[in-house]
Amino acid sequence: MENNLGRIRAAELQDRVVTPEEAASWIGDGMTLGLSGFTRAGDVKAVPFALVKRAETESFKVNVFTGASLGSDIDRLFAEAGIVNKRLPFQAEPAMRKKINEGEMLFVDHHLSHTAEWIRSNVIEPIDFAIVEALSITEDGMIIPTTSVGNSSVFVKHAKNIIVEINTAQPELFEGLHDIYDTGKQGERMPIPLTTVDQRIGTIGIPIDMDKVRGIVFTEQLDSPSNIVAPDEETKIMADHLLEFFRSEIRAGRLTETLAPLQSGIGSVANAVLHGMIDSEFEGLEVYSEVLQDAVFDLIDAGKVEFASCCSITLSEPKMKQVFGNFDNYRNKIVMRPQEISNHPELIRRLGLISINTALEFDIYGNVNSTHVSGSKMMNGIGGSGDFARNARLAVFVTKSIAKEGRISSVVPFVSHVDHTEHDVDVVVTEQGYADLRGLAPRERVVVIIENCVHPMYREALREYYAEALTRGGQTPHVLEKAFSWHTNLAEHGSMLVKKEQTV
Amino acid sequence: MENNLGRIRAAELQDRVVTPEEAASWIGDGMTLGLSGFTRAGDVKAVPFALVKRAETESFKVNVFTGASLGSDIDRLFAEAGIVNKRLPFQAEPAMRKKINEGEMLFVDHHLSHTAEWIRSNVIEPIDFAIVEALSITEDGMIIPTTSVGNSSVFVKHAKNIIVEINTAQPELFEGLHDIYDTGKQGERMPIPLTTVDQRIGTIGIPIDMDKVRGIVFTEQLDSPSNIVAPDEETKIMADHLLEFFRSEIRAGRLTETLAPLQSGIGSVANAVLHGMIDSEFEGLEVYSEVLQDAVFDLIDAGKVEFASCCSITLSEPKMKQVFGNFDNYRNKIVMRPQEISNHPELIRRLGLISINTALEFDIYGNVNSTHVSGSKMMNGIGGSGDFARNARLAVFVTKSIAKEGRISSVVPFVSHVDHTEHDVDVVVTEQGYADLRGLAPRERVVVIIENCVHPMYREALREYYAEALTRGGQTPHVLEKAFSWHTNLAEHGSMLVKKEQTV
Repeated sequence: MENNLGRIRAAELQDRVVTPEEAASWIGDGMTLGLSGFTRAGDVKAVPFALVKRAETESFKVNVFTGASLGSDIDRLFAEAGIVNKRLPFQAEPAMRKKINEGEMLFVDHHLSHTAEWIRSNVIEPIDFAIVEALSITEDGMIIPTTSVGNSSVFVKHAKNIIVEINTAQPELFEGLHDIYDTGKQGERMPIPLTTVDQRIGTIGIPIDMDKVRGIVFTEQLDSPSNIVAPDEETKIMADHLLEFFRSEIRAGRLTETLAPLQSGIGSVANAVLHGMIDSEFEGLEVYSEVLQDAVFDLIDAGKVEFASCCSITLSEPKMKQVFGNFDNYRNKIVMRPQEISNHPELIRRLGLISINTALEFDIYGNVNSTHVSGSKMMNGIGGSGDFARNARLAVFVTKSIAKEGRISSVVPFVSHVDHTEHDVDVVVTEQGYADLRGLAPRERVVVIIENCVHPMYREALREYYAEALTRGGQTPHVLEKAFSWHTNLAEHGSMLVKKEQTV
Repeated sequence: MENNLGRIRAAELQDRVVTPEEAASWIGDGMTLGLSGFTRAGDVKAVPFALVKRAETESFKVNVFTGASLGSDIDRLFAEAGIVNKRLPFQAEPAMRKKINEGEMLFVDHHLSHTAEWIRSNVIEPIDFAIVEALSITEDGMIIPTTSVGNSSVFVKHAKNIIVEINTAQPELFEGLHDIYDTGKQGERMPIPLTTVDQRIGTIGIPIDMDKVRGIVFTEQLDSPSNIVAPDEETKIMADHLLEFFRSEIRAGRLTETLAPLQSGIGSVANAVLHGMIDSEFEGLEVYSEVLQDAVFDLIDAGKVEFASCCSITLSEPKMKQVFGNFDNYRNKIVMRPQEISNHPELIRRLGLISINTALEFDIYGNVNSTHVSGSKMMNGIGGSGDFARNARLAVFVTKSIAKEGRISSVVPFVSHVDHTEHDVDVVVTEQGYADLRGLAPRERVVVIIENCVHPMYREALREYYAEALTRGGQTPHVLEKAFSWHTNLAEHGSMLVKKEQTV
């Protein structure tokens, strides 16, 4: 502990060190917490654990606002302890998902760039306690974040109280990597001055009002490693299709071999698709994304990616060791920003990103469902996919064409939930191929989607649906009474593909 | 004609005057035209009329790209002549709508701020002829637009050929009102420097490459007057609900009496809602919108609106006379911008707009359909509503709770087409009341929507739907096999409200 006091370089804060249990004891029933943490990285750990412990003997509920998903089992523990009233803006945890879908806790599924605006303008519950993980606190009272920035800076600025959790297991090497910029209020703000991916526009830490620091806690625990699965044969083929699309863009004079700054969503498929660029001819690449997963570091190692801007770094266990152990290779190639900046429409549009996100399903007209299984059950949340898709130069959605050994088609007549409308979806990719939807009317989209992206076992059924829809006419022909029949077949018969005799 | 030559102040262009017929003769089958015109304002007239005339004896098709909807019957004449292959990004004309829904022409329903990016980056068909209406051409070769800017500047810059139609009936007083700014290419551009509604950041005209001017045509015809209908009792009540919401925002300290820059969509309802502010306590208002309709000028007259930025001015016949006849009252209170700027996400988010647009229907979770009747038939198009809703401080959607004497409920279990997802819709307003959806989970939204916004004749049926949906569980409970039953009831029985005995 005494050695650790060196991490509190602001001398007047050194007497505020408390135990996690004491810090947790300040949190009252009905309060709203703003926690650091984004895609399992940089979450506070000790205070949440102590809070869960308290729930063994005490009954209370809190609102939990974060950057994005928490690691370290915290969302699971929170859900199982039943202490969450409202959670926003994102989660990705099976036990929590179950509670959400059972209606036992409220989940506000929210664009990741928007939460900061809500906090700043006091639209949602004010933050009673901002609890944020730090590497250290500087002499002039700035919090140096760890492996993510998330919403920490806006939480800290607007919270009534601040608890800092200094995590001595996190790499101190990260100091200097962050770039904290405050947009200011809507209606009063200046243009965000960022015009290149590698530009620094802010400070290396989060400025704080030291009077609000109620306590400082020490902990020593690495982030949870990422739980992505390795690329497989199908994701490799999907990556190849995407590269083929990029090549056609180069031939058309719309892109060069350095492409445009890449954004890639969280998860195995998006990671695998990026990974597929390692053996490609593309080089001098830049990344402007929320989360850097293993693939981006592999691309840096391969000399493909020259710079990566992010909000968090979420790595597998071996990759974490390699990256943290050889950090000088990466230091000058990375900057970490608040999620409001990594996901800001102003910057996404200005930089002209190529945005690659995962779809749960999409329909014959290109509407995308990213979140809801069969229209009702939440998976994780929209995350940043909306921020990117609706403002990017190219909004690409990827998914395998079938799931559950073919019992589910990822391409359906009508998506059971819409997160991204036809207006915001440029290209869809499955292992079958890609469909470039830009500039196409709905009746043109159907053809390229069915012929290029749908699994052969579902193609004929979709052609039949569309043929019947055409008899009804319209800009976007549908047979409304059958639009969700694939989903209801799945619920009733265990498969979207029901043989005709079965349905009689 | 000779007097008119004074309108061509660039001397080297004076010998390029041709007849509309000659100009129209240059247009070949398969070409793509970029026409001025936005919400019935500032459309070119003579060349399109001549083109329609040519179609009487000749068979050809062209792509027609515009700012938004055309007036002067041009969309109708184009549709009836059958000369349009592809139309984008917006139309609002019954005959054209019919052709679109019959599949006889292609319509790409597109965010109004995005077309410029597509043109600039060569994603869609290149413009063979930009044909733009002008007040005059300046000495240094700038086109001074008329009552709209639309996409004219980007069309002119990227077209192979330019035809200028100088309309001597349009008010020359408008010179100096326009502010033309070119964002430059994605990935290479600077921040757009605009930080206040009244700021000028560009030039008063559209700079052109004079070599590309193939011909100049004269015409003398006012724009079509707007076809909005006057406020009625219900729109007045809707306006009152919206004002009540604004007051509650002021009480919560989130707005002041000057509110925030207002955007209001095209159409009677949005116009009526703005009109409702005339007798309110709000003042010192600003407008940052696409189109200025009568209500904004009434608000200027009433001393309520201090400045209005727009892309077009579309007035009723009497209002046109009044405004053009007393223009000195308005000159310093208006600026006209390209639609890429009036609708730019960067600016909408920075300025923190309050955006008010019309919904066709919305569902119990707040998803909005702005475009498709019963999921298939196109009305007009998404227009700018997506540009605004997804980036505004407050995205408000308004609609009457019922239509067709109650045979249609505007609030349904599941919208038959999604233009704006639950993530992008903050407040919904009907004549029944308003529902503030911000920060609410889906299960919370249902309650305020049903109790505040739904017509009493449909409330119980929606409560029943939701009660059954709850038995299925989920973040967003639905009964998929009944989700569109209201729409199929309407198709089969002529009403969404089918008595139980009727459905047996």
